[in-house]
Amino acid sequence: MATQQRNNPPSGTRDFLSRDVRQREVAFAAARDVFERYGFEPLNTPAYERIETLMGKYGDEGDKLIYKILRRGAHEASGEADLALRYDLTVPLARVVAAYGSQLPVPYKRYAIAPVWRADRPGKGRFREFTQCDIDIVGSDSTVADAECIAAIADALDALGVQEFRFLLNSRNALSRLLDAYDIPSELGNGTLITLDKLDKLAPSDVVSELESRGVDSRTAKGLVNDLTAEDAVPRLRKTLTANGSECSGLAEIDKVLDLLADSVGADRIAFTPRLVRGLDYYTGVIWEVEAPGFTGSIASGGRYDKLVASLGGPDVPACGGSIGIERIISQLDGESGAADSRLDVAVTVIDSEGVRELMSLTTSIRRAGLRTGMYLGSSGKLARQLKWADEQSARFTLIYGSEERIAGGVTVRDMTSGEQKSIPASDVPAYLRERVRDTSE
Amino acid sequence: MATQQRNNPPSGTRDFLSRDVRQREVAFAAARDVFERYGFEPLNTPAYERIETLMGKYGDEGDKLIYKILRRGAHEASGEADLALRYDLTVPLARVVAAYGSQLPVPYKRYAIAPVWRADRPGKGRFREFTQCDIDIVGSDSTVADAECIAAIADALDALGVQEFRFLLNSRNALSRLLDAYDIPSELGNGTLITLDKLDKLAPSDVVSELESRGVDSRTAKGLVNDLTAEDAVPRLRKTLTANGSECSGLAEIDKVLDLLADSVGADRIAFTPRLVRGLDYYTGVIWEVEAPGFTGSIASGGRYDKLVASLGGPDVPACGGSIGIERIISQLDGESGAADSRLDVAVTVIDSEGVRELMSLTTSIRRAGLRTGMYLGSSGKLARQLKWADEQSARFTLIYGSEERIAGGVTVRDMTSGEQKSIPASDVPAYLRERVRDTSE
Repeated sequence: MATQQRNNPPSGTRDFLSRDVRQREVAFAAARDVFERYGFEPLNTPAYERIETLMGKYGDEGDKLIYKILRRGAHEASGEADLALRYDLTVPLARVVAAYGSQLPVPYKRYAIAPVWRADRPGKGRFREFTQCDIDIVGSDSTVADAECIAAIADALDALGVQEFRFLLNSRNALSRLLDAYDIPSELGNGTLITLDKLDKLAPSDVVSELESRGVDSRTAKGLVNDLTAEDAVPRLRKTLTANGSECSGLAEIDKVLDLLADSVGADRIAFTPRLVRGLDYYTGVIWEVEAPGFTGSIASGGRYDKLVASLGGPDVPACGGSIGIERIISQLDGESGAADSRLDVAVTVIDSEGVRELMSLTTSIRRAGLRTGMYLGSSGKLARQLKWADEQSARFTLIYGSEERIAGGVTVRDMTSGEQKSIPASDVPAYLRERVRDTSE
Repeated sequence: MATQQRNNPPSGTRDFLSRDVRQREVAFAAARDVFERYGFEPLNTPAYERIETLMGKYGDEGDKLIYKILRRGAHEASGEADLALRYDLTVPLARVVAAYGSQLPVPYKRYAIAPVWRADRPGKGRFREFTQCDIDIVGSDSTVADAECIAAIADALDALGVQEFRFLLNSRNALSRLLDAYDIPSELGNGTLITLDKLDKLAPSDVVSELESRGVDSRTAKGLVNDLTAEDAVPRLRKTLTANGSECSGLAEIDKVLDLLADSVGADRIAFTPRLVRGLDYYTGVIWEVEAPGFTGSIASGGRYDKLVASLGGPDVPACGGSIGIERIISQLDGESGAADSRLDVAVTVIDSEGVRELMSLTTSIRRAGLRTGMYLGSSGKLARQLKWADEQSARFTLIYGSEERIAGGVTVRDMTSGEQKSIPASDVPAYLRERVRDTSE
C-alpha cells in the first residue's frame, strides 16, 4: 500500500483539522442552542450497543451495513461479534427509554448530535462515519408536540443559515383515508404508498405503471396520480378526504399543525402536500420533509411514530421527532461560513535567551486575559525568521523582547496589520492587547 | 437475560442523561478554552482506524484490549477484522502528522478531547469507553515547548477546579546520567527504571530487593534507593549528577523548565523530583506527573517523546505533550459541580384549546428571546395538574392563558418561587421574562 494511502483515514471516514472542527462545532452549537431553548435535553449513549439491540431493527439491507465488533480474548478466534457500532440515534433512545423509564421526565424531550456508522459504499457526500442531528418527544400524543418538533427544526435551519426552506406536510392518517377513498385493497396499501413516494423522482406515467404492476386497477392508479400531481391538488384532496361530510382525522391534525405554526414558522414556509409519503413505514401520524434551494432531496424530515419505541424494544409510548441532515448542510455552507482559521491573537517572539522567563510569565498573563497566544518554539534566533512565523500564524500582534527592550524596560508591540510598533511597559501589555484585539474582532 | 440488564448500556460503558452531559461538557469546555488560549488547535479523527495502524503499537497486553471490527459483506464469514476502535489519541495523531505533513503548521500544536475504547475489565472508575484529554506539540525540541505543555495543563487543572495540585518534574536524561553515576550496566538500565518507578507504591526495602533480583549489585541498589528517598534527595542528586564539575543535560533542562515556569505555574507547585520515572519507555527528555489531594496516583502526566511519532509510523520529528485524567476529575467533582439540571426558564400551560395558536406564537417569541421554554404536552386540561408539571420542570415562571385571560387580553405570569401572579400584555411577555430570568440567574 502506498504511504499516502496508508496514512489516510479509513475509507469513508474523515480527519477534521482545526478549520473543519471549528466549522462543524459552529453548526452543532447553533442547532444545540435552538433545541435547548425548546426544552430538549441532551442524551449521549455509547458508540456501540449489544449486537442484539441493533440487529433486525433496520431491515435486511440495514443489517448488512452494521459494523460488528469481534468478541475478545479467548472468544476472538470464534469470529463471532457481540457488539456493534450504533447505526442511528433512535434505537439507543428506545433502549434508554426502556432502561430509565420513570427517571425520565414525561414527556421526554431529548436531542442528540452525534456520529453514527454505516458500512455503506462511500461516495460523494456519503460517509461511513457521519453525524446525525435528532430531536424526539417521547410520551406525548398532543399535536402541539408535532408542532414543537417542526418549529424547533425551523428555528435550527434558520440558525444554520439555510435560506428559503419550505416544510411539506402530510399525515399517514390522511394517506390511509385517501387509499380508502380510492378503494385500494388494504393488502396493496403499503406498496401503493411506496410507489407514490417516487412522485418527486419519476414521471407521473411511470408511477402509474408501477402502481398497475402492483395490481392497482388502471383507472384508480391514473385517478390517484392525477389528483396528487394536479396544480389544485390540495383543494381536490381536501374534497376527496371529506366527501359526504365525513370527518378525516388526518386532515384535522394537518390543519391543527398548520394553525399552530401559522405565526412561528409562517404560512409561506409550511404547506399541506398531499403527495408527500415518506418511505419509512413506521410513521403513524403527521409526516413532514423540508426542501431548500440548492439541496436535492430533503434536508430535514420527521413525523409521528407512535409504535416505534415499542417495536425497538422500549415501552408502548407515543412519540414524534425530526432529524436534520446536518452533514449536507455543513458541506453546503462550506466556504461561505464564518468559521475562523486557527489564527493567533498574539505571537511572542523569543530572541533573547536571558529574557525568556519574563516572556513566559508575560505570555501567561496575556493568555489569562483570554487571548490566544503562541510563543515561538523553533530554533532560529533571528527576528526576521520569527516575524515570518508570526505572519504565518496570521497573528494580529507580535511581541518583541530583545536585549534592547530588556535594558530599556518595555516590550515592543507590533501591529501586524499596520506594521506600527510601540513600546509598552510589560505590566500594561495584557490590558493593552485585550482592548485592541476586542476592537478588531468586532 | 433480565429486561433491566438487556436495556443497560453494554458492560463498561455509560449512558449520559442530561445532567451528566452538561457536567461533562462544562469540564471539556474548561480544558478546551485553556488549550485554545495556548494556541493549540483541535483535531478530530475517526472512531476507528485500519487495524494495522493500531496493532503492535501498545505492546502485547495493549493489543489484546483493542476492539476489532469484523469485515463486512462476503468477508464477514471469514471472522477477520480489518478495522479497530481507537485505543488512544496519540497513534491517530502520528498518522495525521504523516498524512498531512506540510499542510500542518510547524510546530503543530493540537489538542483532542475524545472517547477511546479499551476492552479492559470494567471496575470502579474504570470504563471501556472513556474520554481522553491530550495536548501535544509536534516539531519543536525547545524547552519552551515542554514548559508550555506544563503551563497549559496547570491552567486547565485550575479551570477544572482541582485544588492544590503539584507537578513532579524529572528528565529521562537525568535518570540515564544517574544510572551511569551508579555504574549500573546499560543492559540493566530499563529494568532498573521500571523498578524505581515503584518507589511511590512499595517500601524502599522491597524496591532494593527487586533491584537485586534484576542483577543490580546490592550496595549499589541500597545507595540508589537511599539517595532517591532521602529527605535531601534533591541536593544529593544534584551533587551526584554534576560530580567532578561535569555538565548534566538532564539537570539543565529541568532547571530551564523550572525557571520558565517560576512565575506562571509557581515554584510552590512544581519541583524537581528525582524518584519520578514514568513507566512508559518512549520518553526521551523532560517527564512530569501531577498529584493532588483526594486523588490517588497522578491526575495528569506527560513529557518529551522525540522518537514516538516516528515509531508510530509518522515522520522523525521531536514532540512533547501531556494528558489530563479528565474522567477521574469529572467523577471527583461530581456533586460539587455547578452543572445545572435541565430546568425550564418558562413553563407554558395549555388549558384553553381556543388559545393554543396564540400561545404557540408567544412561546416562539420567548424562545427567540433566548429562554428555555416548554409547553405542556400532556393530556390533562386541568390547571392544577399542569402547574404540578411546571413545578417538576423546576420552571422559574409559568404562563397561564385560559379563556378568562384571552377575553381580558393579557397573559398571567406566575413567579414559581414567590407564587405571585401578574397579568402582562402578550407582546410585553418575552421582554418581561427575559429581564427577570437574567436577574435570577446571576
